[in-house]
Amino acid sequence: MAVEVVYRSSRDLERLFMDKAEADRHDKMLELAEALASALQNAAPTLSEKQADDLGIFMARHRELFARAFKNNPEALAELPALEKN
Amino acid sequence: MAVEVVYRSSRDLERLFMDKAEADRHDKMLELAEALASALQNAAPTLSEKQADDLGIFMARHRELFARAFKNNPEALAELPALEKN
Repeated sequence: MAVEVVYRSSRDLERLFMDKAEADRHDKMLELAEALASALQNAAPTLSEKQADDLGIFMARHRELFARAFKNNPEALAELPALEKN
Repeated sequence: MAVEVVYRSSRDLERLFMDKAEADRHDKMLELAEALASALQNAAPTLSEKQADDLGIFMARHRELFARAFKNNPEALAELPALEKN
């Protein structure tokens, strides 16, 4: 047995990473997901909190594709997986 | 009276523009909105068609802010208007 360093995002205390860079990526993904969920819920108040959270996470996980879509290439979204499993 | 040229997007026959570049921008916005609505509905099947359409239009209207958010700056979404009126 020995003491070891693990990393986690303060936004998700349950998920531990051995690699700091991975923890960092997870934190950045969650930061974007939260910002998106709150923006979407403002835009469509009928959205449930769970729907807004799910959409935020989904989009943040595929941020490169959405970045391309918003920049100038909507067809990039065709590369999204057909059904997202959480 | 005289004959004049007006422009419209084939995605929205009701909206006429005197300026071709404006019609083009409207068409591009609607193209992105449609791609987004369909991506969101795949990701969250509990979304109603109206919710997906509203979110698609909202995000497409603010594409520059979302482009920045997805690229590397989630705080850009704080610049969204507090409540979107359609």
